[in-house]
Amino acid sequence: MKLFNSKLSIMALAIVGCLYLHSCSINETEKPDPLPSWNDGATKSAIIDFVTTVTDENNTDYIPVEDRIATFDNDGNLWSEQPMYFQLMFAMDRIKEMAPNHPEWDTIQPFQAILENDTLALLQSGMHGLAALMMTSHAGMTSEEFSEIVSSWMATSFHPRFNQPYHKMIYQPMLELLTYLRANDFKTFVVSGGGIEFMRTWVPEAYGIPTNQVIGSSIKTEFLFENGQASIMRLPEIDFIDDKEGKPLAINKFIGKRPVFASGNSDGDLQMLQYTDSGKGKRFMLYLHHTDADREWAYDRESHIGKLDKGLDYGNTHNWTIINMKNDWKIIYPFQK
Amino acid sequence: MKLFNSKLSIMALAIVGCLYLHSCSINETEKPDPLPSWNDGATKSAIIDFVTTVTDENNTDYIPVEDRIATFDNDGNLWSEQPMYFQLMFAMDRIKEMAPNHPEWDTIQPFQAILENDTLALLQSGMHGLAALMMTSHAGMTSEEFSEIVSSWMATSFHPRFNQPYHKMIYQPMLELLTYLRANDFKTFVVSGGGIEFMRTWVPEAYGIPTNQVIGSSIKTEFLFENGQASIMRLPEIDFIDDKEGKPLAINKFIGKRPVFASGNSDGDLQMLQYTDSGKGKRFMLYLHHTDADREWAYDRESHIGKLDKGLDYGNTHNWTIINMKNDWKIIYPFQK
Repeated sequence: MKLFNSKLSIMALAIVGCLYLHSCSINETEKPDPLPSWNDGATKSAIIDFVTTVTDENNTDYIPVEDRIATFDNDGNLWSEQPMYFQLMFAMDRIKEMAPNHPEWDTIQPFQAILENDTLALLQSGMHGLAALMMTSHAGMTSEEFSEIVSSWMATSFHPRFNQPYHKMIYQPMLELLTYLRANDFKTFVVSGGGIEFMRTWVPEAYGIPTNQVIGSSIKTEFLFENGQASIMRLPEIDFIDDKEGKPLAINKFIGKRPVFASGNSDGDLQMLQYTDSGKGKRFMLYLHHTDADREWAYDRESHIGKLDKGLDYGNTHNWTIINMKNDWKIIYPFQK
Repeated sequence: MKLFNSKLSIMALAIVGCLYLHSCSINETEKPDPLPSWNDGATKSAIIDFVTTVTDENNTDYIPVEDRIATFDNDGNLWSEQPMYFQLMFAMDRIKEMAPNHPEWDTIQPFQAILENDTLALLQSGMHGLAALMMTSHAGMTSEEFSEIVSSWMATSFHPRFNQPYHKMIYQPMLELLTYLRANDFKTFVVSGGGIEFMRTWVPEAYGIPTNQVIGSSIKTEFLFENGQASIMRLPEIDFIDDKEGKPLAINKFIGKRPVFASGNSDGDLQMLQYTDSGKGKRFMLYLHHTDADREWAYDRESHIGKLDKGLDYGNTHNWTIINMKNDWKIIYPFQK
């Protein structure tokens, strides 16, 4: 028998050594800080207190593993959303790429605005213009083709201010929070107004969240079976908007459990956090306030990103935990480490 | 130091004992049969060959863990569906329970048929009658209230032939298959025409599949926020039928990946299996043929459960693995062990 030729032997020797030296410290070592990019303070303490409490079997607020559901908004909550939603940047780039085959777009809004880099005119085209933009850029191909288009864009496009790929514009403190929750047997979900298939191309690698735990807005699809090959075709028609009341409805449909932890940053997240708050037992509602104009952006209440006042006001009067980005976070992005 | 007062010490002693006796057999023991309720034969071999092949990193057909998606139909595939879908039995019992408050039902179909235990008349009421039955029995309460109603019914209702609770009428060989796949890092999903919220009340305990991996048909829902309390109200309107073409569409929406393993038993599963079969790389399509009138039921092609001919014929000509229940399964239900 080869004594030293297996992991088993090494483990046994390590344990025996530890026992005989009378200095076994496996249970005595101080735990490393699970949230190293968070400054010490009320926000960080509230998070750690919650997780410690609900995972303690002897505590009356204990939450069984199967109920440890944590939901996170994405835009402006796990990654940045300025100068505009990154998915909108993708849509505009895609229109420019498709434009050579569409000379008529030179004089039709919102396409003309995009081709002329006229963001103001694009925004003035309103919901009708934005819907046309999304449908044109996101439909007419199979799901797998769309996934390749997004992946290719993600690999070759850079944020105008930080000159980083968009999938690097994610918040380091939130990555640590996701990891910390999962280490405590929480199941983490993205619940975003963003496109479900757009997000699924990069979310698993960026956040460690599998595709089936990514919930978002969707367009209609059609099953095709041609020449013995089955595929899913993306149609230019809205299926579901995963925002505001849509978020708790989607959580109920996709997850089938009320979250015990929810995290958001805008009025679009208010109902998800209220739904979480209304459940029985201990809950945690986390609201990110963008206060850091130097390192990220500072905006609240009125913004071209949308309204942000209701969630902030409600959270402030309902004992939700408000992240003050400027004060609570040591760094913003992983590339600043 | 208390040497014998910790799991660590006991583990260390066990390992040391094992090493000193020179008979350490942890790695030498033959693996136990992962599918003990399956008779040896082509079906069992095909399953084990597939799993062994795609989990072998040195094999060209290796499938990375994140792509090991396995989807299972439920009715007639993981549990029985005779003498009729168990969810229909639930709906009928619920109508009887609600009947005292609805004297008008005595003369209105399909309610009259249910109250008179006239199954033929119920079936003759057609899709319109069945839809009325489902809407009346499944809507008008919150999601959490509905879950309690189903759980209560499950705990107190018994199958007319086997006199067992319905959630015990599950197939022991399929339980072993689910466990075997999960032990090999497959993620297992239910993808059923049954009601998503009906299934989620009992599926986690019965199959070891969490609620967010249960996909099914749904009715519309509404977000309510009253007196500071948020809830989800179930509405009497169909949202989505998770059958036939609906299954691949739902898989794409809920899971976001094409399965590599799919299992079904009826025409309602054909498209899910075709979608699985059309993906790149090695795939496994499993089709259950009900051939055991003595121990379960024997039915195929035409049946009051629905048509079963297309899937069987397609599978037979496309190299899918067909389970012959009578020959391939040693026992049917766990309570027969």
